[in-house]
Amino acid sequence: MANHTLLLLSQDNAEYHALLKQAYLPGLTILAPREETDIQAALTRADILLGEPARIKARLRDARALKWAQSTYAGVDLLLGPGSRQDYLLTNIRGIFGPLISEYVFGHLLSISRHLRHYREQQRHHNWQPIPYQSIHGKTMLILGTGSIGQHVAATARHFGMEVLGISRAGREAPGFDRTYQVQALNKVLPRADVVLSVLPSTPETRALFNAERLSHIKPGAIFFNVGRGDAVDETALVQALRNGRIGAAVLDVFAIEPLPTDSPLWDLPNVVISPHNAGYSFPDQIVTRFSRNYLKYIESKPMEGLVDFDLGY
Amino acid sequence: MANHTLLLLSQDNAEYHALLKQAYLPGLTILAPREETDIQAALTRADILLGEPARIKARLRDARALKWAQSTYAGVDLLLGPGSRQDYLLTNIRGIFGPLISEYVFGHLLSISRHLRHYREQQRHHNWQPIPYQSIHGKTMLILGTGSIGQHVAATARHFGMEVLGISRAGREAPGFDRTYQVQALNKVLPRADVVLSVLPSTPETRALFNAERLSHIKPGAIFFNVGRGDAVDETALVQALRNGRIGAAVLDVFAIEPLPTDSPLWDLPNVVISPHNAGYSFPDQIVTRFSRNYLKYIESKPMEGLVDFDLGY
Repeated sequence: MANHTLLLLSQDNAEYHALLKQAYLPGLTILAPREETDIQAALTRADILLGEPARIKARLRDARALKWAQSTYAGVDLLLGPGSRQDYLLTNIRGIFGPLISEYVFGHLLSISRHLRHYREQQRHHNWQPIPYQSIHGKTMLILGTGSIGQHVAATARHFGMEVLGISRAGREAPGFDRTYQVQALNKVLPRADVVLSVLPSTPETRALFNAERLSHIKPGAIFFNVGRGDAVDETALVQALRNGRIGAAVLDVFAIEPLPTDSPLWDLPNVVISPHNAGYSFPDQIVTRFSRNYLKYIESKPMEGLVDFDLGY
Repeated sequence: MANHTLLLLSQDNAEYHALLKQAYLPGLTILAPREETDIQAALTRADILLGEPARIKARLRDARALKWAQSTYAGVDLLLGPGSRQDYLLTNIRGIFGPLISEYVFGHLLSISRHLRHYREQQRHHNWQPIPYQSIHGKTMLILGTGSIGQHVAATARHFGMEVLGISRAGREAPGFDRTYQVQALNKVLPRADVVLSVLPSTPETRALFNAERLSHIKPGAIFFNVGRGDAVDETALVQALRNGRIGAAVLDVFAIEPLPTDSPLWDLPNVVISPHNAGYSFPDQIVTRFSRNYLKYIESKPMEGLVDFDLGY
C-alpha cells in the first residue's frame, strides 16, 4: 500500500490529530507541526491537506505534493474563482450541516412566532399576559438552494406542517419540497412565502441576488433568513426594507463583511437577529468521520463525498 | 331528524357563532345569549354545551337538558373529581395540540441550546462572539405522557435526531417513542434524559409526582419542561433544584396557581422561562372542525373523539 501524508491546517489541529490517530487510517502519516519551518517541510511532502479554507488558501502555493484538500467548512468560495489553483481534488463537508441549520432556523423561527423575546421582558416584570400567536403549520417557506442543507430544512418544515417551495439553478424536483422552481421564477414565487431562507453558496449568479428590486417582491411582513453567504444580499437595500417594515424580520448568520462591522446599521434594527456565522459548526468528530470515509475512497481512486466542481463553484 | 340545541359558553362566543353557522350542521340550533335571564332560559333546553371548562362548570347545575359538553380545552380536570356531575358525555379536544406543543417545546429548547438570549445581549453591544454549542441530535428526551401530544412531540424529537423515551401509566409502546416505561420506572429512567417533558394531565397519581426526591434523580444540568398541569410539580422543590443548579433550566407553561402569583420566586430565577399557560391554544376554527365532526357522530349515537373517562380522569 502506498503511503500518504496528511498535513493538518486547522484551528483545531490538536483535536483533529487525536481523533485521526484513533481512526487508524491505513498508510496515513499525520503531521501537525507548529513551527513555520516544519510546516514548510511538511508542505513539500503532504499529498493531503485538511483545514479551514482560509488556512488552506494561505498554503496552496507551497503545497507542492498536493493531490487532495478536505475543507472543514461547507463554503469554499475562498478557494475558487479566477486565477485560483485547480490542479487538485477539493472536497467540502456538504451533507453534515442540514441538521444544525434546521436547529438554527426553527429555533429562531419559533422564537419569533411564539414571541419569546416579549415573554422574557414580561417575565422581568412578573407580568402574566398571553400574547396572540399563529402556528407555523400551514405557512409557506421558500428555500433558495435545494441541496443537502435545503432538503433537510425542507423536511423539518414539512414536519411542522409548512408548505415548502424551493429555488435552484435547474429547478429540478428535490426531496422534501412541495415544488421547486428555477431561479428565473424567483420574483413570482417570493410573494407567496411567509418565510424566505437562503442557503445559497457564493457564485457569480448568487451575488446581490437580493437587491432592492428583488426584496420588493417579498410578502409584506415575511421573515427573511440568510445562512448561506452574505454576498447574496445587498445589505443597504435589506436595511431599507427592514426599516420601512416591508420585511417583518431578518435572521442573519452571514454578512458581506465578517465579522459584521460594528458600525453596521443592522446591529441596532429591532427586527434583526444577528449571529456570528455559526448556524452550522464543524464539529471535529463529524469532520473526521467524513474525512476517514473519503480517505478510504481516495486511496482507491473512487469518487469522494463533497467533491467541489471548480467551474460550478460548489 | 331530531332537533338539538347548542349553548355557547366560551370567551370567544361571537367567533364560534359565526364559524358554526357556516358549518351548516343539520338540525342544530345555536344559542349565544348575553343576558343572564336568556342564558338561564337556554340552559333549560340546550342538550349541548361548548366552552371552557370553568364556564361549563359554573353552569352544570342549571343545565337540565344536558347530554353532551364539548370542552374547548384539552385539560378538563375542573370538571372531574369527587362529587362532580357525570351524567353527560364530556369531550375534550385532545389530538389538536400536538403540533402547537411541539412548536413551543422546540422553540424553547433550541433557543436554550443555541444561546439565543446571550446573542441578543451581544447584539445590543455590537459584539460578534461565537458561543460554543451542542446539537440536540443524539440527546435524549423523556416525555411523561404518551398520548396524542406526547406522540407528536416524540416525532418531532426524532426528526431532530433525539432518542425519545416515554413514561405512561401502562408503559405500552407508543408511536414515535424508542422505548416506553411504566411510571414506576421513572426514577431509573430520569438520570438518562437531557430533556424531561411533562404533558401529564392532573390526576390523583400525577399530583406532586415531581417532588424533591424525584427531582433528585434528574440528570444534573438537564432541561425540565412542564406543559401538562402545574400540580404535577412541587414548586418549592423545583425552585430549590434550580437554585442549587441540579436542574439546568426549567421551561414552565403551567403552575400550581394560575396566573402565577407575582411573589413566586420562579419569576426571578435566571434559568427559568415562564409562559402564561398558552403553549397550546384553542383556535376556534380548529375547535369548530372537531365539534362539527363530533356533532355528526353525536346525532347518530356513535363514539365521539376526545371522550373523557370520568374514572380515569382524562
